[in-house]
Amino acid sequence: MRWIRYSTPGNAPAYGLMHGDLIEPVDGDPFDGWKPTGRSLALTDVKIEVPVVPRTFYAAGLNYTAHVKEVGVALGMSLPTQPDMGYRATNALIAQGEDIIVPADATEAVQYEGELVVVIGRKAKHLREEDALSCVLGYTIGNDVSERTWQKSDRTFWRSKNTDTFKPMGPWIETEVDLDALRTEVRVNGEVKTQFRTNEMLFGIARYLSTMTRYLTLYPGDVVWMGTDGVSPNLVHGDLVEVSISGIGTLRNRVVREGQV
Amino acid sequence: MRWIRYSTPGNAPAYGLMHGDLIEPVDGDPFDGWKPTGRSLALTDVKIEVPVVPRTFYAAGLNYTAHVKEVGVALGMSLPTQPDMGYRATNALIAQGEDIIVPADATEAVQYEGELVVVIGRKAKHLREEDALSCVLGYTIGNDVSERTWQKSDRTFWRSKNTDTFKPMGPWIETEVDLDALRTEVRVNGEVKTQFRTNEMLFGIARYLSTMTRYLTLYPGDVVWMGTDGVSPNLVHGDLVEVSISGIGTLRNRVVREGQV
Repeated sequence: MRWIRYSTPGNAPAYGLMHGDLIEPVDGDPFDGWKPTGRSLALTDVKIEVPVVPRTFYAAGLNYTAHVKEVGVALGMSLPTQPDMGYRATNALIAQGEDIIVPADATEAVQYEGELVVVIGRKAKHLREEDALSCVLGYTIGNDVSERTWQKSDRTFWRSKNTDTFKPMGPWIETEVDLDALRTEVRVNGEVKTQFRTNEMLFGIARYLSTMTRYLTLYPGDVVWMGTDGVSPNLVHGDLVEVSISGIGTLRNRVVREGQV
Repeated sequence: MRWIRYSTPGNAPAYGLMHGDLIEPVDGDPFDGWKPTGRSLALTDVKIEVPVVPRTFYAAGLNYTAHVKEVGVALGMSLPTQPDMGYRATNALIAQGEDIIVPADATEAVQYEGELVVVIGRKAKHLREEDALSCVLGYTIGNDVSERTWQKSDRTFWRSKNTDTFKPMGPWIETEVDLDALRTEVRVNGEVKTQFRTNEMLFGIARYLSTMTRYLTLYPGDVVWMGTDGVSPNLVHGDLVEVSISGIGTLRNRVVREGQV
């Protein structure tokens, strides 16, 4: 199944199921229960919203070898020895098609990070690695936009990664996914810049969820961004960034530099 | 005014106004609007809940000189040169009177951090320092419980500070506060262990909110934990930790080590 969160003028965001380019609105939502309505909407007639506003917004950070070597090492980081989890903030979330607004005082080093996003479907603690994926509702796509100068100078990621609009997520949640078959591709203005096998992580999803839930409870609607591979060029005003993950979809957002519109 | 969030058996958490030891339930909440009901409940007849489950849970971290010197330096940190903001996670929140459960594999170095908590009342961006406090609904109390060994060994604070139950917050939100008059006192089993002037921060609340909102939007219900001063003894099974801030109240939680009950 493919869950979409959408809105129509004057109405609060709601969930529906995708059937091709049609949306079937549901009563309820994928986390607390739902009923089909039999109604139908065209995808072109709605605004796609962020697929979920998470209660807690987790991010794995350094989780692919090439990314650690090419970005992490420049920032003084070494290869993680255990799956430590970081956080991002919901203020920064934007939906499919919304603009990434780069503040006027940001440096040129604004880059994308295309990521697989795990959406938690049920409350979970003390998951064993072998059945850790049982708490997962499905998968979506994230772009962990980062200002590298601030990432290096600041004590935390509050500004480098959590400036408003720096966390595009979407377009929808796909529940049927063959993790090992997934490929991530990032294009800028249609040109392929980064490609990697999505599931070739230092620490896989099950390992992360199992480790995390030794200490913390996951809740329905929590999201876990799994990190990225490779490097990004610096993004400039007007760039269209597309993060595609095969079997899920494509997350598209344009870059706008404040003061240049 | 003093806002309390409470529940009664079989009912969802609700907001009320405190009048001495009586609660006046309201229709609505302090963030989206409310109406008085004229009804009354005894404080002893309700369960006090976490005063708000924040959309984003900010924490200033190192914001008092003595704490940086005595805890930060041991962890390789130096005095911050600008107000960078960190994050905590809502999974870890517990309310007044609930137990801090220390996992069986935690070391002995589990410590309190008594903190002033700023509760945001309205959406805000680009606040000037001189009127930054205009977005504040009121203040409550937090205990930023920390496992110092994990804090040092892990790449993030996911486990050292965000293990379930490590973030007591409450008991209520006080809207009328003279910041310069506040004093924080932390007692363990009735014995005073830490005392400091609450508002003697490296970077004050207005400076933080102004700096943060250059880049991010604050939302109603967001909380900002302002950091702590001094050091804590290691907490052991059975300890009662009380964080008092004059003019606000006292946050009380007992320490329970897993496997010792």
